Amino acid sequence: MSKVWKVAVLGAAGRMGSEAVKAVNTAEDMDLVAALGSSDSLDEVVESGAEVIVDLTVPDVTEKNVRFAVEHGIHAVVGTTGWDDQKVANLRDLLTQHPQVGVLIAPNFAIGSILATEFAAKASKFFESVEVIEMHHPNKVDAPSGTAVHTAHKIAEAREEAGVGASPDATTKDEGGSRGAVVDGVHVHAVRLRGLVAHQEILLGDAGQQLVIRHDSFDRASFMPGVLLGVREVAAHPGLTHGLDGFLDLS
Amino acid sequence: MSKVWKVAVLGAAGRMGSEAVKAVNTAEDMDLVAALGSSDSLDEVVESGAEVIVDLTVPDVTEKNVRFAVEHGIHAVVGTTGWDDQKVANLRDLLTQHPQVGVLIAPNFAIGSILATEFAAKASKFFESVEVIEMHHPNKVDAPSGTAVHTAHKIAEAREEAGVGASPDATTKDEGGSRGAVVDGVHVHAVRLRGLVAHQEILLGDAGQQLVIRHDSFDRASFMPGVLLGVREVAAHPGLTHGLDGFLDLS
Amino acid sequence: MSKVWKVAVLGAAGRMGSEAVKAVNTAEDMDLVAALGSSDSLDEVVESGAEVIVDLTVPDVTEKNVRFAVEHGIHAVVGTTGWDDQKVANLRDLLTQHPQVGVLIAPNFAIGSILATEFAAKASKFFESVEVIEMHHPNKVDAPSGTAVHTAHKIAEAREEAGVGASPDATTKDEGGSRGAVVDGVHVHAVRLRGLVAHQEILLGDAGQQLVIRHDSFDRASFMPGVLLGVREVAAHPGLTHGLDGFLDLS
Amino acid sequence: MSKVWKVAVLGAAGRMGSEAVKAVNTAEDMDLVAALGSSDSLDEVVESGAEVIVDLTVPDVTEKNVRFAVEHGIHAVVGTTGWDDQKVANLRDLLTQHPQVGVLIAPNFAIGSILATEFAAKASKFFESVEVIEMHHPNKVDAPSGTAVHTAHKIAEAREEAGVGASPDATTKDEGGSRGAVVDGVHVHAVRLRGLVAHQEILLGDAGQQLVIRHDSFDRASFMPGVLLGVREVAAHPGLTHGLDGFLDLS
Repeated sequence: MSKVWKVAVLGAAGRMGSEAVKAVNTAEDMDLVAALGSSDSLDEVVESGAEVIVDLTVPDVTEKNVRFAVEHGIHAVVGTTGWDDQKVANLRDLLTQHPQVGVLIAPNFAIGSILATEFAAKASKFFESVEVIEMHHPNKVDAPSGTAVHTAHKIAEAREEAGVGASPDATTKDEGGSRGAVVDGVHVHAVRLRGLVAHQEILLGDAGQQLVIRHDSFDRASFMPGVLLGVREVAAHPGLTHGLDGFLDLS
Repeated sequence: MSKVWKVAVLGAAGRMGSEAVKAVNTAEDMDLVAALGSSDSLDEVVESGAEVIVDLTVPDVTEKNVRFAVEHGIHAVVGTTGWDDQKVANLRDLLTQHPQVGVLIAPNFAIGSILATEFAAKASKFFESVEVIEMHHPNKVDAPSGTAVHTAHKIAEAREEAGVGASPDATTKDEGGSRGAVVDGVHVHAVRLRGLVAHQEILLGDAGQQLVIRHDSFDRASFMPGVLLGVREVAAHPGLTHGLDGFLDLS
Repeated sequence: MSKVWKVAVLGAAGRMGSEAVKAVNTAEDMDLVAALGSSDSLDEVVESGAEVIVDLTVPDVTEKNVRFAVEHGIHAVVGTTGWDDQKVANLRDLLTQHPQVGVLIAPNFAIGSILATEFAAKASKFFESVEVIEMHHPNKVDAPSGTAVHTAHKIAEAREEAGVGASPDATTKDEGGSRGAVVDGVHVHAVRLRGLVAHQEILLGDAGQQLVIRHDSFDRASFMPGVLLGVREVAAHPGLTHGLDGFLDLS
Repeated sequence: MSKVWKVAVLGAAGRMGSEAVKAVNTAEDMDLVAALGSSDSLDEVVESGAEVIVDLTVPDVTEKNVRFAVEHGIHAVVGTTGWDDQKVANLRDLLTQHPQVGVLIAPNFAIGSILATEFAAKASKFFESVEVIEMHHPNKVDAPSGTAVHTAHKIAEAREEAGVGASPDATTKDEGGSRGAVVDGVHVHAVRLRGLVAHQEILLGDAGQQLVIRHDSFDRASFMPGVLLGVREVAAHPGLTHGLDGFLDLS
């Protein structure tokens, strides 16, 4: 019989948290042993016998939650933002005292999005030109998206390592700024359109050919396979892992 | 038996002109009676018995060519740029003295591109959001493309007429300029990518749905059906027509 | 002050109906005066003073509902399927006795989808090749979709009227059937993919160029602007209108 | 100073061959020492001092050419088709006697196309659904394309290895065959459209998300970077390599 993971979801009443509750309940290899809201005591996590917590709370409390889990020998899969360098450093210190515990902090649980970034970076050294277009709903306040910036970083890194120069661009006149933002030398364009959720397209061009890699997140359900993958793998990866890509076997 | 048009191509040695020579030669309802380079005399046009000239020369000489044709009762299909307001006004004057002659000045002969703009404008009043992305080869010096600016104008016009407000946009932070140029209230993005030629995509979004209209020009051959359509229709449209859309029956 | 429509939604507890209830409630120019489930009496429609019914019920009862409305001088916007030729003919008869009443029967309320079909048909006479790809969630039991078949019909009609021949195709070997279904001479391909809802893409190709028209329905909300448009326009269109395109001003 | 490769192109007058002549001439790290047509003697290859031949001839003569090269200690990059199992086996035998010589036989030199297939296969184990659409010019006689079949094979292989089941499909009615060909359990659709050259799109879907990987070959120039990469790498890969992916460093 295969392993069944005992899972506690923290932030269970939130938008992501309630999706996670559903997802864990549906997964055949998981048991939801606790679902905590903001007023519940962390002691329930221990009492429930959870082996893994899924933290989808808020920046204010995520550090306390994760440290509590680690101190009790419980693995953690963390989707909450707000982990600055200091908090991460403190967590690493704590983990050295609990070397068997694994923590995954993932800014993005959409496996397809992570793959899109990976593939784009790998391909970018073979193409003369590369640009990124991200498309989101019009209620988003920041542009370009964090994912697009991350993709541009990875592309720039891969191209520099391979000794590939900048994408060619003869533009001499662009008063309105139609060429977009330049992030690490990569042009990034942000579209805002009612009806969309979160989308990213990477265009790679060379003489006579184009490679396009596109990811669409249509709803929050798209993050759940990544959360479940995190739960299944975190115990096998003691210490701190940053980014779900560390758990994806792309060989 | 159906009409066979006698056609003279001016600028026959140029990139567009040589394509036009091929296209006219291939068309069953056309006879290429003259193909003039820059050193040939315009008298050849008259001597050849041409009924229609196709002017694909350069801004410096196109006015002289077209006026010559009109004065000799020959229709003209013009793809050369450089027709400013003054030149156009002078040509209108001349045409009043030759009321049976037709002249088409078309900045864009790609029928698909004209349709894309038309459709986008017509659709835009039914959608909350609309943005334009144009994509070209990286040797292009200006951004955004004239076609994209034209599309934005037509969209803005259609939305104003229908009383549709601006596309929603909650962006409060965009240091790099990723949101692109704003042309008549429409966001326009310009991508430059090796391997591409000339492409335009209009994205229209509303709650729960998206309409995308995209045109790709892969090579100059894409302009020839529009040139031939111009030749076939120009005699039936006396006076000056601006833009090939005037000849497209979209009912 | 502008007109406020009194609207009754029938089938209000269903998936489409409950969306319609929300949409009517949100529209500033509409008053939801009744929301009927399957056990409610049609008399409520009359008592509520409704001027328009929105019928989103089931094939078994839609005819009875609509005839009831017409007999009481109430306009009807109908999204329910099951209107065969006989039922439609009977309804036309009834409408001759109530010449001031309007009924709209629309198999598809997504305005973007209707526009996509219209544009594709209009453009298809200018392109040598045209094919249709529809993409849906994998729980759909029939292929190709009714919308794609409808699009193929309209394209075939437009091309025949314009005297355009069949799309060229040199295929001599296709054992597996990869070239798809041929509907009225138009190749139609059906993709089934988890994560998708309802999407259609029409590809039009000519020498050196391509025009792509794509519509995405991400969720049922996409149908509501069409339903509301129907409510606003149905009184101004007495008699029977088949298809929402009759109400879209595309000039 | 970096290595300059002495290269002989065989089949230099053909469509691919003449592109290769141009590409080798342009490459700074290559010297075109011979360009042979069908009537030239293979002795020229030896006399020219070529270190690598690029064979872009025809199925009838490619075996003789390559064996001649190997026997003279010259590496070979082969784009010609017609290498059946027997010919390949014979070549392997010959290569055991010349262990320092490298031969690359590549059915596809478009790096972007190879990457698209690789990425699709790698991603396919993370997605419930996957389908392939290939699009080509309408003069192509076979469907689906060899590249699409190859992609389907690689996807099927990757999914089987990872224990992923078939893509879900509830279709019970598809009289016209719109669901396409099923290759190794993967649905493959073939579009034929004037204006296109060679394009492939792989759609991967999961709850709430989609990953699309698309490759466009706009002209034969797209194959040249792959040919040049082959020339640069073949000497470092003694023995027979099948497929350019063997030379692409994707780590």
